[in-house]
Amino acid sequence: MGNFVCGSNRIAGCSFSIHPMSDDFIEIITTALKEVDTSKVWMQTDDVSTLVRGRIPHIFDVTKAIFLHAAKTGVHVAFEATYSVGCPGDTAGDVYMAEDDHVLNKEKADTIKQEAATKFALYPLGGGDYMNQIYAQIEAMKDHGVKVSGTHYATRLDGEVVNIFNGLEKVFIDMEESGSLHTVMTVSMSANSPSAKG
Amino acid sequence: MGNFVCGSNRIAGCSFSIHPMSDDFIEIITTALKEVDTSKVWMQTDDVSTLVRGRIPHIFDVTKAIFLHAAKTGVHVAFEATYSVGCPGDTAGDVYMAEDDHVLNKEKADTIKQEAATKFALYPLGGGDYMNQIYAQIEAMKDHGVKVSGTHYATRLDGEVVNIFNGLEKVFIDMEESGSLHTVMTVSMSANSPSAKG
Repeated sequence: MGNFVCGSNRIAGCSFSIHPMSDDFIEIITTALKEVDTSKVWMQTDDVSTLVRGRIPHIFDVTKAIFLHAAKTGVHVAFEATYSVGCPGDTAGDVYMAEDDHVLNKEKADTIKQEAATKFALYPLGGGDYMNQIYAQIEAMKDHGVKVSGTHYATRLDGEVVNIFNGLEKVFIDMEESGSLHTVMTVSMSANSPSAKG
Repeated sequence: MGNFVCGSNRIAGCSFSIHPMSDDFIEIITTALKEVDTSKVWMQTDDVSTLVRGRIPHIFDVTKAIFLHAAKTGVHVAFEATYSVGCPGDTAGDVYMAEDDHVLNKEKADTIKQEAATKFALYPLGGGDYMNQIYAQIEAMKDHGVKVSGTHYATRLDGEVVNIFNGLEKVFIDMEESGSLHTVMTVSMSANSPSAKG
């Protein structure tokens, strides 16, 4: 068919990749995946990215946990993700919308101390006042214990991975609840980088 | 200041990362960079991504060349990029808008035979009819000798890297010329992956 495939109404999702800069990248990814309970999300992996779909709390819980379990190896690991909600399209994975809000990976993942540098961008689609919506959400990010700074095409966040993900999830939910019909958020996160910080 | 920083009117740009899944990732990236002439773009690297800004042909020429020179090592390399044009904001790099259209890296880079799998997504911001604009551009992708298929939140392209980049650049320019005030395109590309193709 070749068409753009999105989600049915209000199912959220994320297309993400974990890139460990190591000869052992397969081992690091598969070990991280084994530590994460993905039973409350629809999940599919191919050679470019992994898709998770379902309710917002589980999407963030699962992606955060996989990144943390990969990063705790100490290897330089990048996380590249596109979160989306409200994209018009198919219905695969809708059964996962019946799951409750109890997240399965927070207890174990949130004990992992790990700093990261992140660039994120928010794209509320189809709306006119999108720049003001974005500025408001960047301001809100400062409440999550992370350092917020500007860069081209994105906002930079520095701090603990757990705090960064809490902030990203809050911003995504707020955007959704403010009435944005179709919200996309991209996230590039880097842990254990040998480069000096900017 | 902490604000969202974008580009001045019609300067294009890209925030991208090259992730070689190898212990030699630093060597692979620095060697690839040395093979690429970046004199017609504004460029800045930090620990999360590299920014290039300037005229559209040079943005695509430089990013394509860096990815190809990294991928030709045979190592599994991922390329993650956000292209943007029309974002309201600052003016750094405007001097590069005076460059001509002659691209500096095509002759050498386009001789590199390299297949890749790609997922790309197009986000025309601030407009109402954005889904139809996206569908039209996906159709146009089929003219570039790459296999086009649907996936969640993105369109998948399989083929030669040179053809994929030609298609991406054309789609980006068409979107810009169709009057979209602020266009964002995200690209995830994977070369030499050990995973079976989907």
